[in-house]
Amino acid sequence: SKVEIQLAAAYVSDAQYNRNILFDRSPEGIRLYRLYNHWGLLSITYIFIVVDLALAIFEEPAVVPLPIWATSLVEFLCLLVFTGRLVHFAKVIPRKSFWKDAKNICIIVTILLTLVDMIIYGSLKVTGYYGDRWSRVLRPLFLVNITESRQVRRAFRSIRNTLPQILYVFLLFIFSVLMFSLMALKLFGKRNYLTIEGKPYFTNYLEVVFNLYVLVTTANSPDVMMPAYNNNTWFSIFFILYIIINTYVFMSVFLAVIYNNYKKHLKEEVKQLVSVKRHKMVKAFKVLQVCEGNEYIVRQSHWNQLVKMVEPSISNAYRELLWSVSDDEQKGYIGKVAFVQLADLLNIRVITTKARIHPLQTWLPDLYHSAGSRLIHKMVQHKGFVYAYDLIILINAVFIGLDEENAIIAYAEWVFLGLYLVEISLKLYTYEPRLFFAKHQFWNWFDTIIIIAALVATIVTSVLRSSGGYNSQQVLDIVFILRVLRLIRIVDSIKRFRSIINTLMNIGPTMLTFGQLVVVVYYIFAIIGMEIFKYKIKSYSPDSTDPESEFCGNILLKDSKFANYKYCKNNFNNIVSSFILLLELTVVNQWHDILLKQNGFTMVTHISAILYFIIFHIVVVIIILNIFIAFILEAFFVEY
Amino acid sequence: SKVEIQLAAAYVSDAQYNRNILFDRSPEGIRLYRLYNHWGLLSITYIFIVVDLALAIFEEPAVVPLPIWATSLVEFLCLLVFTGRLVHFAKVIPRKSFWKDAKNICIIVTILLTLVDMIIYGSLKVTGYYGDRWSRVLRPLFLVNITESRQVRRAFRSIRNTLPQILYVFLLFIFSVLMFSLMALKLFGKRNYLTIEGKPYFTNYLEVVFNLYVLVTTANSPDVMMPAYNNNTWFSIFFILYIIINTYVFMSVFLAVIYNNYKKHLKEEVKQLVSVKRHKMVKAFKVLQVCEGNEYIVRQSHWNQLVKMVEPSISNAYRELLWSVSDDEQKGYIGKVAFVQLADLLNIRVITTKARIHPLQTWLPDLYHSAGSRLIHKMVQHKGFVYAYDLIILINAVFIGLDEENAIIAYAEWVFLGLYLVEISLKLYTYEPRLFFAKHQFWNWFDTIIIIAALVATIVTSVLRSSGGYNSQQVLDIVFILRVLRLIRIVDSIKRFRSIINTLMNIGPTMLTFGQLVVVVYYIFAIIGMEIFKYKIKSYSPDSTDPESEFCGNILLKDSKFANYKYCKNNFNNIVSSFILLLELTVVNQWHDILLKQNGFTMVTHISAILYFIIFHIVVVIIILNIFIAFILEAFFVEY
Ligand code: NA
Repeated sequence: SKVEIQLAAAYVSDAQYNRNILFDRSPEGIRLYRLYNHWGLLSITYIFIVVDLALAIFEEPAVVPLPIWATSLVEFLCLLVFTGRLVHFAKVIPRKSFWKDAKNICIIVTILLTLVDMIIYGSLKVTGYYGDRWSRVLRPLFLVNITESRQVRRAFRSIRNTLPQILYVFLLFIFSVLMFSLMALKLFGKRNYLTIEGKPYFTNYLEVVFNLYVLVTTANSPDVMMPAYNNNTWFSIFFILYIIINTYVFMSVFLAVIYNNYKKHLKEEVKQLVSVKRHKMVKAFKVLQVCEGNEYIVRQSHWNQLVKMVEPSISNAYRELLWSVSDDEQKGYIGKVAFVQLADLLNIRVITTKARIHPLQTWLPDLYHSAGSRLIHKMVQHKGFVYAYDLIILINAVFIGLDEENAIIAYAEWVFLGLYLVEISLKLYTYEPRLFFAKHQFWNWFDTIIIIAALVATIVTSVLRSSGGYNSQQVLDIVFILRVLRLIRIVDSIKRFRSIINTLMNIGPTMLTFGQLVVVVYYIFAIIGMEIFKYKIKSYSPDSTDPESEFCGNILLKDSKFANYKYCKNNFNNIVSSFILLLELTVVNQWHDILLKQNGFTMVTHISAILYFIIFHIVVVIIILNIFIAFILEAFFVEY
Repeated sequence: SKVEIQLAAAYVSDAQYNRNILFDRSPEGIRLYRLYNHWGLLSITYIFIVVDLALAIFEEPAVVPLPIWATSLVEFLCLLVFTGRLVHFAKVIPRKSFWKDAKNICIIVTILLTLVDMIIYGSLKVTGYYGDRWSRVLRPLFLVNITESRQVRRAFRSIRNTLPQILYVFLLFIFSVLMFSLMALKLFGKRNYLTIEGKPYFTNYLEVVFNLYVLVTTANSPDVMMPAYNNNTWFSIFFILYIIINTYVFMSVFLAVIYNNYKKHLKEEVKQLVSVKRHKMVKAFKVLQVCEGNEYIVRQSHWNQLVKMVEPSISNAYRELLWSVSDDEQKGYIGKVAFVQLADLLNIRVITTKARIHPLQTWLPDLYHSAGSRLIHKMVQHKGFVYAYDLIILINAVFIGLDEENAIIAYAEWVFLGLYLVEISLKLYTYEPRLFFAKHQFWNWFDTIIIIAALVATIVTSVLRSSGGYNSQQVLDIVFILRVLRLIRIVDSIKRFRSIINTLMNIGPTMLTFGQLVVVVYYIFAIIGMEIFKYKIKSYSPDSTDPESEFCGNILLKDSKFANYKYCKNNFNNIVSSFILLLELTVVNQWHDILLKQNGFTMVTHISAILYFIIFHIVVVIIILNIFIAFILEAFFVEY
């Protein structure tokens, strides 16, 4: 019956997309469940998550300030959507499992807390008091806990499982830092050495600990060593040992522990995914099975209806092919073993490699088969054609490096554009256009888009230039970028390069998961950072004549390294500059300059602000970054 | 016969120590070969290698200058020893294999080149000309190519095998840097931005490339971005993409490629070692075999003679044990399969765990078994004993952190020393002393040595202080270091810490191989660096009143960042400061400050000196350091 087919289709689709949701098996339940997984509803949910996160752009401290009622309204709308999605989910699955699932509770609590916070904040504002929108820190929880973000959740679970092991290494590492600091205090503290700034060197234990912690990130090397080293060469041994043990050995051990755990966890996850997939397919089989002799089977007619429902887009011919693969003995029915493979079969995207006939061959057969035409085909297919264009790209690179104000070089640009257009035309003449622009032909797409965009941009520039001499810098920038991007395709000519690039592109999708993880962590730190540090440091346009621009608008920073290095724009005054600052902190270099006592953020707030930066370093550099490296390592081992 | 036993012993010993040398099988040949492998000769060779390398301390530019005739004489002596060793080796193996082996040729060429260089240098000096001792660069070749340094050679072979794969990733990485640089030149070059030093920003292509290369090492982040970012927030996207692609992805890919190759290579090497070992043991078997019925066997009498010759130190009882393991059916002879295991059996160091009787139990049985004595035993073996001493260590740590000028605290030090001595005495009273000080009891040895050394040093200090108030800072330093080191043993109380520490200690020996690798590379770079940069930058004592100390003795460095940061001691004026400088370059931070155009070494020599630093970075940071990380990763996976 139709309901049974629908139920089986829901199971197969779950197996296909690795879902593991226990839904209500009534006809109404199945319909709701299929609706729940509809790509349209999914997209709407994701759009509202992005909107919710993006609200930080418009709220105080804002990039583009909007009135509170506007952002609150949008946020309320987002909450409504999330609630709706959750109610929908609650209808789909049994009540018991709904309340058992931590992520549902988490979403409900987050929504309630956000509402409470909005009300408190609103009433405080109305009565003229100052309030914090603290619940903004919770927003990334929607991204993590919405049912579809399985991979992000898996990544977080992996981190949580690794934590106990990291903790012990971390404690040992901190113990080592503390011991070295104690030794440094005893060795150098009484010697009356001075730092470059003329301050006493290594006389306060907490300062020693902080300086040596920064040395682990290498950010204050060799400056932290110089006062001791300048006075006695032997003291360098202390720092050499410190760097070997703490910077090299311990940081590698962190990577080792995280990588080890990552691999272990990955294996378990894959095993579990395979078992859930099989389990779902067996359930689908049991729905459709009939008894034939002494074995349970599924008939071709049922199978056909099922596949039509699961993947309406696939052609009859391809479905026939899939059936013949499953029913290899042509019995007209299949057993459980053959049926279970269906989910994997549907996930294989077969690339149609059948030779298509070039349209010109159909329309102008005489011309297409003429001797001249065939010569062109041979020429384009010849290795020399590739080499010739590689040479052209190299010459182009030289011309780009030269000064484009020169008239000849500006003219040459047209020549190069023409040559590239000729190349694409010749290729389209030789190869079948639909094959040339097939989905997996990345470089053909890349070439064509870059060159057509460059053509359009170059024409726009020259039109702008000839009509009144107006020169749009933005369009010019785009032209320059496109010109340089064009050169990239030379890597495709070298086989070894291609294989590395392919590996990097294959791990791209998984990188997106990682990107979400980073966004979650950065967002939380950015919101907290904005609450603590906003407007403490102001940035001015580079040609500002305001005398306050000399010290970033905060007299405490007068003559500080922070202001002298023109770091004013490294601040927490909006979400964008916060993200950029956090990236700088991730890169670690000069991070002590951005925060150290005599400079930057601790100067304009309080010494304890150091904690914010150290916690960020531990979470992002020691944990997240090592997971990234572990992920690249594993991906390269599998792919390369 | 004795000769046969000697031949078999040579094979077994080769199998034991993974040697693979084809020696002459005549009685004289066997005798020479056994002599060649004698630990005395080995030690002499290594001592002379160290002496040869250490000559750099005494030669211009010297730490401790010695006259040329003295260093030349010692070097000549070293060359004589190396020649002697090589002649000995030539006598041991067939002439054909001697000349086929690249490492012998390498040693001969190195010796000849060194002699030629010494003669040229000597004659130039005598006639008053200036000459370079360029052959000093070749000295590490002795360390690598002397036959015994198998592991170092294996490491170099592993690097050589990885090079082709690294090369392609490196080329792609360089291509990426060049493309980004071209884009940066086009985007920022015409905008008239200025750096903090007021210089034009990103206007010269080579400078852009260098700046972006430095950004990969993170050393100039965020300074290199600030001029563009201060003018337009969007430009930060360029740098963010650059850092993600080049600093994070490419550097991880380097690690992935090197680690992948390291693992592969390691597996092959291990496989080969096992096969060579088996092969040698089979050879030894064939020498001793006799035909018994229809199988070849080795008799116990021959086997006994063999083991006595291979390992004269092992006791009769232990040899009997080994035999009974091999001849498990007690037939009085063994076949090939059992015989081949001998090399591995001999390598197992059985830790004698048999309970020994405490000497006091023998001498004073009544006292030792008295109720009081048994109470002490129980107390020492109780968990509380460990906790009590952990608490004492923690209190001690606080006291160390306090000011030791205070009389009470100075007195407390004696109390702590006394408590630790009591602890060791009690343990020695409870546990059998020979078991307590067994080879593998690292922490017992550590405790005892540290505490006795601290006791001696503290007594020396107080004697010195009471007799005339003289205070030796060196002795005081040692006391401080010992006091802090004492605290380390608290990690042994926590099981999880112990397992991490054990892993680190187990990989220690292999780290030594790695250390040799680093010494070889550092030595070569140090010698070259000294030839290029010696005396260009001078260092002065911190309290020097010489006006030249303001600019490191080179007027070109007047008002430079290099001089202002008091970096003068970061120079190539002797082998020790060269090594320290190279370590600073390995840590990478501020390396552009040590060399950049407007500072440091390129300022006092020539812009092309940058090449020295870039090549060092590629060799040490991209290749050697990643091998180190790969090595720690693999070690942790195997051990942890
Ligand atoms: Na750095």
